[in-house]
Amino acid sequence: MEKFRFLTAGESHGKGLTAIIEGIPSGFEISPDFINEELKRRQQGYGRGGRMKIETDTVEILSGIRFGKTLGSPVTLFIKNKDFENWEKIMSTDPQDYTEEKSFSAYRPGHADFAGSVKYDQKDLRNILERSSARQTAIEVAVGAVAKQILNQLSITCESKVLQIGNGFTEEEFHKEIDLAKESGDTLGGKLEVVYYNLPVGLGSHVHWDRKLDGRIAQAIMSIPAIKAVEIGDNPLGFKGSEYHDQMYLSDGKVIRKTNHAGGIEGGMTNGEPLVVRAVMKPIPTLRKPLNTVDSSTKQETEAHFERSDTCAVEACAVVAEARIACVLVNEILLKFGGDSRKELLSRV
Amino acid sequence: MEKFRFLTAGESHGKGLTAIIEGIPSGFEISPDFINEELKRRQQGYGRGGRMKIETDTVEILSGIRFGKTLGSPVTLFIKNKDFENWEKIMSTDPQDYTEEKSFSAYRPGHADFAGSVKYDQKDLRNILERSSARQTAIEVAVGAVAKQILNQLSITCESKVLQIGNGFTEEEFHKEIDLAKESGDTLGGKLEVVYYNLPVGLGSHVHWDRKLDGRIAQAIMSIPAIKAVEIGDNPLGFKGSEYHDQMYLSDGKVIRKTNHAGGIEGGMTNGEPLVVRAVMKPIPTLRKPLNTVDSSTKQETEAHFERSDTCAVEACAVVAEARIACVLVNEILLKFGGDSRKELLSRV
Amino acid sequence: MEKFRFLTAGESHGKGLTAIIEGIPSGFEISPDFINEELKRRQQGYGRGGRMKIETDTVEILSGIRFGKTLGSPVTLFIKNKDFENWEKIMSTDPQDYTEEKSFSAYRPGHADFAGSVKYDQKDLRNILERSSARQTAIEVAVGAVAKQILNQLSITCESKVLQIGNGFTEEEFHKEIDLAKESGDTLGGKLEVVYYNLPVGLGSHVHWDRKLDGRIAQAIMSIPAIKAVEIGDNPLGFKGSEYHDQMYLSDGKVIRKTNHAGGIEGGMTNGEPLVVRAVMKPIPTLRKPLNTVDSSTKQETEAHFERSDTCAVEACAVVAEARIACVLVNEILLKFGGDSRKELLSRV
Amino acid sequence: MEKFRFLTAGESHGKGLTAIIEGIPSGFEISPDFINEELKRRQQGYGRGGRMKIETDTVEILSGIRFGKTLGSPVTLFIKNKDFENWEKIMSTDPQDYTEEKSFSAYRPGHADFAGSVKYDQKDLRNILERSSARQTAIEVAVGAVAKQILNQLSITCESKVLQIGNGFTEEEFHKEIDLAKESGDTLGGKLEVVYYNLPVGLGSHVHWDRKLDGRIAQAIMSIPAIKAVEIGDNPLGFKGSEYHDQMYLSDGKVIRKTNHAGGIEGGMTNGEPLVVRAVMKPIPTLRKPLNTVDSSTKQETEAHFERSDTCAVEACAVVAEARIACVLVNEILLKFGGDSRKELLSRV
Repeated sequence: MEKFRFLTAGESHGKGLTAIIEGIPSGFEISPDFINEELKRRQQGYGRGGRMKIETDTVEILSGIRFGKTLGSPVTLFIKNKDFENWEKIMSTDPQDYTEEKSFSAYRPGHADFAGSVKYDQKDLRNILERSSARQTAIEVAVGAVAKQILNQLSITCESKVLQIGNGFTEEEFHKEIDLAKESGDTLGGKLEVVYYNLPVGLGSHVHWDRKLDGRIAQAIMSIPAIKAVEIGDNPLGFKGSEYHDQMYLSDGKVIRKTNHAGGIEGGMTNGEPLVVRAVMKPIPTLRKPLNTVDSSTKQETEAHFERSDTCAVEACAVVAEARIACVLVNEILLKFGGDSRKELLSRV
Repeated sequence: MEKFRFLTAGESHGKGLTAIIEGIPSGFEISPDFINEELKRRQQGYGRGGRMKIETDTVEILSGIRFGKTLGSPVTLFIKNKDFENWEKIMSTDPQDYTEEKSFSAYRPGHADFAGSVKYDQKDLRNILERSSARQTAIEVAVGAVAKQILNQLSITCESKVLQIGNGFTEEEFHKEIDLAKESGDTLGGKLEVVYYNLPVGLGSHVHWDRKLDGRIAQAIMSIPAIKAVEIGDNPLGFKGSEYHDQMYLSDGKVIRKTNHAGGIEGGMTNGEPLVVRAVMKPIPTLRKPLNTVDSSTKQETEAHFERSDTCAVEACAVVAEARIACVLVNEILLKFGGDSRKELLSRV
Repeated sequence: MEKFRFLTAGESHGKGLTAIIEGIPSGFEISPDFINEELKRRQQGYGRGGRMKIETDTVEILSGIRFGKTLGSPVTLFIKNKDFENWEKIMSTDPQDYTEEKSFSAYRPGHADFAGSVKYDQKDLRNILERSSARQTAIEVAVGAVAKQILNQLSITCESKVLQIGNGFTEEEFHKEIDLAKESGDTLGGKLEVVYYNLPVGLGSHVHWDRKLDGRIAQAIMSIPAIKAVEIGDNPLGFKGSEYHDQMYLSDGKVIRKTNHAGGIEGGMTNGEPLVVRAVMKPIPTLRKPLNTVDSSTKQETEAHFERSDTCAVEACAVVAEARIACVLVNEILLKFGGDSRKELLSRV
Repeated sequence: MEKFRFLTAGESHGKGLTAIIEGIPSGFEISPDFINEELKRRQQGYGRGGRMKIETDTVEILSGIRFGKTLGSPVTLFIKNKDFENWEKIMSTDPQDYTEEKSFSAYRPGHADFAGSVKYDQKDLRNILERSSARQTAIEVAVGAVAKQILNQLSITCESKVLQIGNGFTEEEFHKEIDLAKESGDTLGGKLEVVYYNLPVGLGSHVHWDRKLDGRIAQAIMSIPAIKAVEIGDNPLGFKGSEYHDQMYLSDGKVIRKTNHAGGIEGGMTNGEPLVVRAVMKPIPTLRKPLNTVDSSTKQETEAHFERSDTCAVEACAVVAEARIACVLVNEILLKFGGDSRKELLSRV
């Protein structure tokens, strides 16, 4: 039941990342600059390591847009991996290039390595790492940046922020926590919040479980790598019914609320209040301070392979969360309003 | 991408609730007694009010099963609403029976009433209440009870418990909190946990966001009425990387873990550890102590309509959560192993 | 990508047939009388045998409709099998009722028996027959009758006719062919046509293969039991380009066509001309004049089991085809126009 | 319910055509040479015009394959449009490059132009032509060539042939018909046949309409541009039941058939006989001998725009049909057998 549907592809050190988005109405203005700005936002944040600074991801639009506007046909986005030249032989599609350089066999705890290698029958764990890497979120941000431009043209906007990192609750504390963790070769997670404004009432539905908007958002957010908890609105733990539910009042003949504990969703539908989504990211599982693990090849205990150097990526994760929610919302808007062109959609929303 | 797919239907005071499940392999033993026990579990728990005690839901199997075993054809489940006789005219399908008895127009905060009536263009909020009621979880529990019987025949089991109610953390405290809330006409939510054991490694996948098992579970759980937060494994807030990730060791030549912070999922896949899912339920939004609201008909502020009398339903919600996860797991198992008959499936799992 | 989605269930001699339809906007008038008339049309036609005359199928609406109008919630339809009382033990869900009465093991050529029993690991071919029977089309006609009522309220109508039976091309010849076949214990198929009028331009889409309307209709029609060929518009065999394509002219400032070889679909979309779909049904595979076959139990050649006595069911099949196309069209309309209520939809179409 | 799912993208004169295929098990050998051979087959055939000879399509694999084998991650295919350099400004994504060069406004009968421009609110019909062009079948052939390599490794093979062109039934007559049509500026369609061998019994299912294999194949074939009729096995028109159904016999203890009128599908499932699919292609709708039409800009009658010069493309269409069926079959095999790696799949099929 998706009208805005997409597939993404690409290995972390392959030629690049690709997405095809199918179902966008015609006539929406899509700017690669906006996408590139979102890609840049994803690469920033206090606590990012080496690779993020080298790469400056830029998108190439391969289809679906002509003279700046969508055609109604599928939109293809491509993000070149800038360091592919260093990996050309290692990630080659050609069997003749076979090499064991950069292969590894020690499962990294907290990663897909163990389950992925069992599932896909792979000895070289690089064959799992390459797709399970957080690198894949770059193309998801690009897809979300297309969705966001559609939302913006429907006057829907968003903002996000980091609520907690480690045990810090303010920007100053975030930096202190990150600095300390970095020194000790450790990593940190945290909590983030995304808010969407000006959504029409009635996105989602109460009539069947798989049409509930909160469920769809939860799926989108929980499937971001490293996310372990999702909340819609305020976590109700400890609240009484008389405290939690957002009572309704009249103001100038309009129904208003003085609170938004529900985070903008009641009965699986948007209720006209801002949509508030929060999520908790686990600490990055690749640590300089090594974790104990097992080598699938030697059948010995060993230390986990170390490839990346971020200490904390919660800020980036908030950008990914914005993007993922944008995709869910565009899909819901298209389901509710139909519309094959921007003109038609604008006349209905 | 569903092999175990189902639709549910039914109004809270209509003739009954129906589900059709499509995609079950042949040869699985399905007992209505097991389903009825699960329905009974859903109706129990400290803090339940009047209606739950009157009803004793029982399922009728209308198709898909012969001599106790699935045929491979769609399974239909029907749960009669025992008090339909009192609602026959009010919920009639016949236009000639039109009545405004039991209609209401004051939005109940925390319910689907407001958004639902805008979306579906309804003046009588009963037309929203009837489907958005938690009553619909009865048929979801029945569907889940079919899924659980399949899982059991694959040696997969589950258990659940309530972790917190109001501000209480033990059964004794739960009762005290509920008694106090009941006295003051208030309601309580809480936190629950479901654990599934003996899952094969590699359910779900890291290769595409919508195949990640954690995302699918999050959708299933967040779409249960009143759930506002979902966690997979331990909430990582405050953990450092060196503390959170489940290190691997060798024991008798097997990879083992000493912790399960990840809750059995890494990289969007089961990793062989128990699957741990936690969720937070908001307090029931129908209170004896009335909430302020607006009447859509009179355009005046008023007090919210009161129809049910539960004080707390977290125990029941845990049963629903077990059921919803069971459905996700059976689907994943069918996707991974295929299999048109129990015999075939058992030979592969 | 379905907004009008449904599941059907039920064995041929079980308790009955059930369908749940999810995705219907609120406010549409649905009359059980209309559904019953369609069910009656399906049971008629020259060449039908005993069972069709005994049964007079009637639908019961179990959910989704109140006072004659859809609520937006899932609609459940139930058709009781009138002779279930004679089959209660044979089709029992209870393992204690196990019996081999009415079981059989000789594959019936042209039926699902062989492939179905291999796939679903069944010895008693009744376990395949019961679901693969043309009886299942009764509930599909009921679902289609709901869809047709929606279409009618959008001023979209349809008609169908039989074009050929055996080698006969007129009603008189149809009867003669059927009489002859019946006398010799044989069966006949034929060709039918369904036409839908007043469809909006632009249902379906050219932008992706699985959104093409002709493809979706072809699936819906080819999946009717016994259909082996589907055509959209005139079969182009033997036509030249200059003869086949429907040239466009102006008439009173409007684009018109003088021909409709394309059958109302160009580029996978409705083009404003009547939608013309034709299909060829194979002869009923259950013959009084027995076919040679193999008994899976004795491993001997034998004659095929005989259960039904229709000689020809092409007229009924046309009713099924109308129904199946109605479902596809309602889905396409909902995708194109969105709309959660009849009022909203009518304002857009 | 797709395990082998894919999206395609790309305009006819844009940068190129892209496909992402998601759901391929790991370990299958995929050779770009095989894909290129299939692309070449698609470009050949008596009656092809200019463009086909210029282009020699070659695929680039952007993801999902390493050292010649699938990784389990999504596979991206890209086919560069060789004449893009001539269209760079005309098909630019940049609004600053806006030009009306190569725009046109006279609807081409038999194409998507009319319905597409109404649906997508486009004045320049090039914005419809670019995606509705038969060019898109190149990437579908590439996707199918991946599917075919999977099938080949499961020992499933296929062949196709042209049965009729215009009124010719042999290769000699095909050429004569095409020569005559070409001379008179006309075009021809025809009939083609695809046969798949060695399929396992029980692909598809009789239990629900949308799982029937014949329906899925019909959709895949009917959505190929220009296809107007699809048949599974022998068209039953004029056959009696006693003649049509494929009787079963014993030979060396195995069930055999002496005929295959059913084309390998009974009850919506493969029955072990070769799968036979036939289709009728309409004459190419772009003729040198112009068709009457209407110009949407001038609101005058005029002659249709002429861009391509093929006289007949039935041979190419057979290659596309092979490809489309291959995709359906791989999906069905994955649904039936599951399997995340080639090794696992081979052990089950």
